[in-house]
Amino acid sequence: MIPLHSHSSGRHFLQIPGPTNVPDRVLRAIDNVTIDHRGPEFGVLGKAVLAGMKKVFKTKADVVIYPASGTGAWEAALVNTLSPDDLVLMVETGHFATLWKRMASKLGLKVEFLAGDWRHGIDSAQIGARLKADKDHQIKAVCAVHNETATGVTSNIAALRKAIDSSGHPALLMVDTISSLGSMDYRHDEWGVDVTVAGSQKGLMLPPGLAFNAISAKALAASETAALQRSYWDWKEMLAINPSGYFPYTPATNLLYGLHEALEMLFAEGLDKVFVRHYRFGEATRRAVRAWGLEILCLNPDEYSSALTAVVVPDGHSADAFRKTVLHHFNMSLGQGLSKLSDKVFRIGHLGDLNELTLCGTLAGVEMGLEISGIPHKKGGVQAAMDYLSESSMAALTRAA
Amino acid sequence: MIPLHSHSSGRHFLQIPGPTNVPDRVLRAIDNVTIDHRGPEFGVLGKAVLAGMKKVFKTKADVVIYPASGTGAWEAALVNTLSPDDLVLMVETGHFATLWKRMASKLGLKVEFLAGDWRHGIDSAQIGARLKADKDHQIKAVCAVHNETATGVTSNIAALRKAIDSSGHPALLMVDTISSLGSMDYRHDEWGVDVTVAGSQKGLMLPPGLAFNAISAKALAASETAALQRSYWDWKEMLAINPSGYFPYTPATNLLYGLHEALEMLFAEGLDKVFVRHYRFGEATRRAVRAWGLEILCLNPDEYSSALTAVVVPDGHSADAFRKTVLHHFNMSLGQGLSKLSDKVFRIGHLGDLNELTLCGTLAGVEMGLEISGIPHKKGGVQAAMDYLSESSMAALTRAA
Amino acid sequence: MIPLHSHSSGRHFLQIPGPTNVPDRVLRAIDNVTIDHRGPEFGVLGKAVLAGMKKVFKTKADVVIYPASGTGAWEAALVNTLSPDDLVLMVETGHFATLWKRMASKLGLKVEFLAGDWRHGIDSAQIGARLKADKDHQIKAVCAVHNETATGVTSNIAALRKAIDSSGHPALLMVDTISSLGSMDYRHDEWGVDVTVAGSQKGLMLPPGLAFNAISAKALAASETAALQRSYWDWKEMLAINPSGYFPYTPATNLLYGLHEALEMLFAEGLDKVFVRHYRFGEATRRAVRAWGLEILCLNPDEYSSALTAVVVPDGHSADAFRKTVLHHFNMSLGQGLSKLSDKVFRIGHLGDLNELTLCGTLAGVEMGLEISGIPHKKGGVQAAMDYLSESSMAALTRAA
Amino acid sequence: MIPLHSHSSGRHFLQIPGPTNVPDRVLRAIDNVTIDHRGPEFGVLGKAVLAGMKKVFKTKADVVIYPASGTGAWEAALVNTLSPDDLVLMVETGHFATLWKRMASKLGLKVEFLAGDWRHGIDSAQIGARLKADKDHQIKAVCAVHNETATGVTSNIAALRKAIDSSGHPALLMVDTISSLGSMDYRHDEWGVDVTVAGSQKGLMLPPGLAFNAISAKALAASETAALQRSYWDWKEMLAINPSGYFPYTPATNLLYGLHEALEMLFAEGLDKVFVRHYRFGEATRRAVRAWGLEILCLNPDEYSSALTAVVVPDGHSADAFRKTVLHHFNMSLGQGLSKLSDKVFRIGHLGDLNELTLCGTLAGVEMGLEISGIPHKKGGVQAAMDYLSESSMAALTRAA
Repeated sequence: MIPLHSHSSGRHFLQIPGPTNVPDRVLRAIDNVTIDHRGPEFGVLGKAVLAGMKKVFKTKADVVIYPASGTGAWEAALVNTLSPDDLVLMVETGHFATLWKRMASKLGLKVEFLAGDWRHGIDSAQIGARLKADKDHQIKAVCAVHNETATGVTSNIAALRKAIDSSGHPALLMVDTISSLGSMDYRHDEWGVDVTVAGSQKGLMLPPGLAFNAISAKALAASETAALQRSYWDWKEMLAINPSGYFPYTPATNLLYGLHEALEMLFAEGLDKVFVRHYRFGEATRRAVRAWGLEILCLNPDEYSSALTAVVVPDGHSADAFRKTVLHHFNMSLGQGLSKLSDKVFRIGHLGDLNELTLCGTLAGVEMGLEISGIPHKKGGVQAAMDYLSESSMAALTRAA
Repeated sequence: MIPLHSHSSGRHFLQIPGPTNVPDRVLRAIDNVTIDHRGPEFGVLGKAVLAGMKKVFKTKADVVIYPASGTGAWEAALVNTLSPDDLVLMVETGHFATLWKRMASKLGLKVEFLAGDWRHGIDSAQIGARLKADKDHQIKAVCAVHNETATGVTSNIAALRKAIDSSGHPALLMVDTISSLGSMDYRHDEWGVDVTVAGSQKGLMLPPGLAFNAISAKALAASETAALQRSYWDWKEMLAINPSGYFPYTPATNLLYGLHEALEMLFAEGLDKVFVRHYRFGEATRRAVRAWGLEILCLNPDEYSSALTAVVVPDGHSADAFRKTVLHHFNMSLGQGLSKLSDKVFRIGHLGDLNELTLCGTLAGVEMGLEISGIPHKKGGVQAAMDYLSESSMAALTRAA
Repeated sequence: MIPLHSHSSGRHFLQIPGPTNVPDRVLRAIDNVTIDHRGPEFGVLGKAVLAGMKKVFKTKADVVIYPASGTGAWEAALVNTLSPDDLVLMVETGHFATLWKRMASKLGLKVEFLAGDWRHGIDSAQIGARLKADKDHQIKAVCAVHNETATGVTSNIAALRKAIDSSGHPALLMVDTISSLGSMDYRHDEWGVDVTVAGSQKGLMLPPGLAFNAISAKALAASETAALQRSYWDWKEMLAINPSGYFPYTPATNLLYGLHEALEMLFAEGLDKVFVRHYRFGEATRRAVRAWGLEILCLNPDEYSSALTAVVVPDGHSADAFRKTVLHHFNMSLGQGLSKLSDKVFRIGHLGDLNELTLCGTLAGVEMGLEISGIPHKKGGVQAAMDYLSESSMAALTRAA
Repeated sequence: MIPLHSHSSGRHFLQIPGPTNVPDRVLRAIDNVTIDHRGPEFGVLGKAVLAGMKKVFKTKADVVIYPASGTGAWEAALVNTLSPDDLVLMVETGHFATLWKRMASKLGLKVEFLAGDWRHGIDSAQIGARLKADKDHQIKAVCAVHNETATGVTSNIAALRKAIDSSGHPALLMVDTISSLGSMDYRHDEWGVDVTVAGSQKGLMLPPGLAFNAISAKALAASETAALQRSYWDWKEMLAINPSGYFPYTPATNLLYGLHEALEMLFAEGLDKVFVRHYRFGEATRRAVRAWGLEILCLNPDEYSSALTAVVVPDGHSADAFRKTVLHHFNMSLGQGLSKLSDKVFRIGHLGDLNELTLCGTLAGVEMGLEISGIPHKKGGVQAAMDYLSESSMAALTRAA
């Protein structure tokens, strides 16, 4: 085996916004012997994870699971519902929205890409107006990223739904929840999303390698006429065999073991508690950033992410050099700035299998790294986070009593 | 965790022709904590597994690794090299050849599908003749399955190459080695294959979830003009970033740990020894089948598979009932007959992480299952296998001395 | 890590009579993070394993668990109940009985050691007679080995109890079940045993490192006056704190995780079924040995062991050379002849986490090893075992219907 | 499996002074299949771990390894070297010294127990004086605890040696390093220790279940005449067979796998660096305690422990209630006050597989726990620790440059 993290004692702090720290229980589950994917035991497993994923998506509609990374689920959403040269409306909320847009173009779709500053979420009013203007319904789908992993900015999907409804436009709504599902509240059915895209390696606390689509009846109907070529991603064959717990081609059995375990953990904690926990960790992190006197990339507090916080490094300082220092001194990985944010921000992942003390350790690593790197800042970030965490913990206790 | 194989003591015998028994070393490797896929350690891992896979494919050309199952590698081979309505020549060697053909059609290709009886490999002469007849080079690619997993029949790829060369036809040669790679000799470069397709869960001794393409310079050139839409499977972005050990989207990190370990095991044993071992296990199995008086599906001894043996069940008996009996009584999974072979054959997988004694246990399970099922047969199958294994073991020893 | 079994592909066959093959479920349990041995979760674990062990011993009396190997449990039995120069009656049933006797002498006890031929169990009548002759009750304890691991010969403990009772002698009865517990029926209470000695690495399917005493009220009373010095092994401190699930000194936490899992497996299968399974495997093995024309060391069929079979190698042949050949060619470990049986017998372990096919693989390895080693034998051992296993499997099925 | 730590997300913080957090690498090693303890592979393993332990003890003399917990190594030290009614000089440095003393009495030794206040280490001058007064050498051994786990106070073994030497007294010197070995510098040979006692579950980063003695030539000579009864703990049989890598009775194979891995980790980091790391974590912890305005139990800074810090809780407050609060709110286990320190102190373990960020998380958990528990304190403990850790990290870097 390639020796991992051999440069240091103690556990590595994997505080990028995904892949996240995989719980021991999930790793042990993945480590079980592979079984016959056509045998009776597999059917039980398959049905259990499909049912569990519906609970996580908050949907009664169909869910499919691919042996793929999240990028594959983006592609599945597009090729199952659209035809060559269809027009898709997308919004430049950040790096991943941009990648999805590029994929759509590569797949032969036309994309109208509404410009953004990477510091705000989607402007629902703008979408509504654009759809209203689209009298002859050229636009076939609106694609939104719920939580932009590159920026730590969320978009309000319920509001987006309302704006689309108000416009009376029939476009499909497709939402990327790759870095929000399992960390922030998300409601596929209630919010009227047509295709939800997700991956395994963030809030679901798994290694990368599984990708998901939740599919509304409207999206399913669209797939009947959608003319983009597809085979691996084709929903139809999946949905035909899934009710028995099996898959049309060999599934990623061992990752499904992990999914089963991760779902048990999420449901045991309770999704609502999981979301509150993530909120608290996000808020504690933001208080630390403010105490340091640094800038949070996300400009609108209503759009803060519970999954990650992107922090702007003062001019004249290198975010990448800082991250390297933190990795070298404190055995912690932080997320890098991507594309036009390269070297300008670092991202603190605070999602997945995380607790208060690991978060405090994470923030301590950032604060000590700032000190060692000579990046201008005030002390007291960890203190601010602790003050909030102990207060909110006490409050939670009081409420519970 | 869903309790696996809880119905019986002892290890489950997973003797389907894949997924195969995953070695403990590989399972433990997969169980390591997930790391930052953009960090320095990952680059070392990525470079190592890419280099290792080239050795397995026996190529100096490019190899790409997808987070996907083998089916995805089929799709990648087609969409990277071909354009809508291109004509592809395929041969009906069995169920998986048929599935690949169906995929090609779904992706918008035209397929000429040479009929077969599922008991023979590819007739190179027939291919050569067909290509010669294709004066204006309508045929863009010949697709062949090296080892048909549904039948235990192999095709001679070197001969196929020669036939194509003799015809002077420029068609690409694409070969599916999903159930042969790592079990039988295969030479991407020497045999002039343009795209080799592979998966993780057979001879590579991994769980399912990784898929591979080995890519000749000619195939790479073809990808420049190939017009089938592609994004997830696009070689170009892979190859651009792979030299640094990284991937364009999140790779299946933990399965790559497993791949690293599996490659170490294969190289430690030595690929040639691995192939001899598989040959011996195939031959021992066939001797058992003959001793039982049962029929081997594969009719041409030159085309026997070292990875699996499909056994024909006498008329009036159900192969599926037999398999169920074996599972119930002896905690062993055997491969089912697929499609038109359904209920007519069972398949014994003898590939991957397997040794003499596990094979004898496997054959004992078949022989006792035949007895319990009341399927007409003679005793002595395991004995025949043992005789061969101990003789060939002694011979090997003598040769080594 | 030291690479284990790196000389061969496939799973090692660990067919010594212990340590036995540890099930994956147990290994995974052991692999969990160590917890605070004074915290609330530990108490739950401690109580569960102590209660479970009582079920295995079939006792309502006290059980103690030591971080030690079985040898330690021998010592615990002696030092808790006896005083310097006390006379103990022991029987030379084999190597381990001899080791226990040597230990008793080292600890300052006097031992009367009834000679034996290592091919028979204890003669209850002889014990009864000896006790009757001991008018003034010089003998303080009778020590018996339930299943002599060195020979594959069992002793009838119920009969021994009866003989002691008939003699009207008050001696304690101490029984070593190290290689029988969890494989063969054993009844601490019903058979009136005073101290039962056990270890983790045989029928309990754990790695070595845990040792057990089951303790009758009479033994406990004896410990009040027993004057042999003791501290680590002292029952008193154990029993004082055990009811809360804790231990007087740091317990082997991770092995206790494994014990918890192993107990769940044994109870899920059902102890009675576990014993029948072991009986069948013993009988199948003996049929194989007879078919080979070799001699079973145990001379009295009533005393056959369900845990192991010792096989006598014909004069002029080396059992150790044979075992080496089997290890080299077939990646299987067999038990060696110990002490005066050295090089004269080999022992086949057929206990623990084992099923029919693994047993057939084991016997195939023996049969092929005999062939390669040139040891005179007839073929057909595996066949005889298979015949029995499939018949008895069908019978079991019919009975169940 | 009993679900562990199911009450909370994220990793449990096991910050008791042992068992310590077991590294993933070690857990994975322990999880390997058990092998034949008399086979060739085992010999390699046995020799490797015995040699490795000599490096850790810094000795060229003999080392023995028992399947037992540390308490067993105490007993082994005594029973191998002493005779009934021998007089032993011990010092009441804390709870564990008191337990060792009680054990010596139970084993039939006479103990002179020098009273202590549990806040200081051994007074070498006092020992020297006592030995000088012992003209006829009634005292056969001096027993010292290097690092008293109950108090976080160390004793200066080199000074003790010097005092014994100055007295010209021939008593053996026996030292308990259960909670110091692998965390603090220790030199069996250089300091002239006769028997060193150690266990697996602290600085060696293993689960509990292995116990060690390092044995000087003088101690070995003493064992020739020592009359305390012994069998399990007898050095003689161990030392007779150990050179081949084997053991006289079944060793705890899987824990030895873990030991092999842990030794590799310690040597890869370098013992000197390991000790510096532990010193830094101790110092950072003490700065935090002082910043909180709380009292460190250890009164003499020369005797501070690098393995743990015991913190005195202000009068009127319950240390146990505090620990329960921390466990409930922050999923962290802290060490309890033992015996006469019960409910008066809590102990922070900062040894084993630990890094800066985990330590900061630990101290954050203490600081937030103090807040929630309403224990009077000042804020700023984590800040003080971070200031020290980042400074000393920079200094280390500068030195290295």
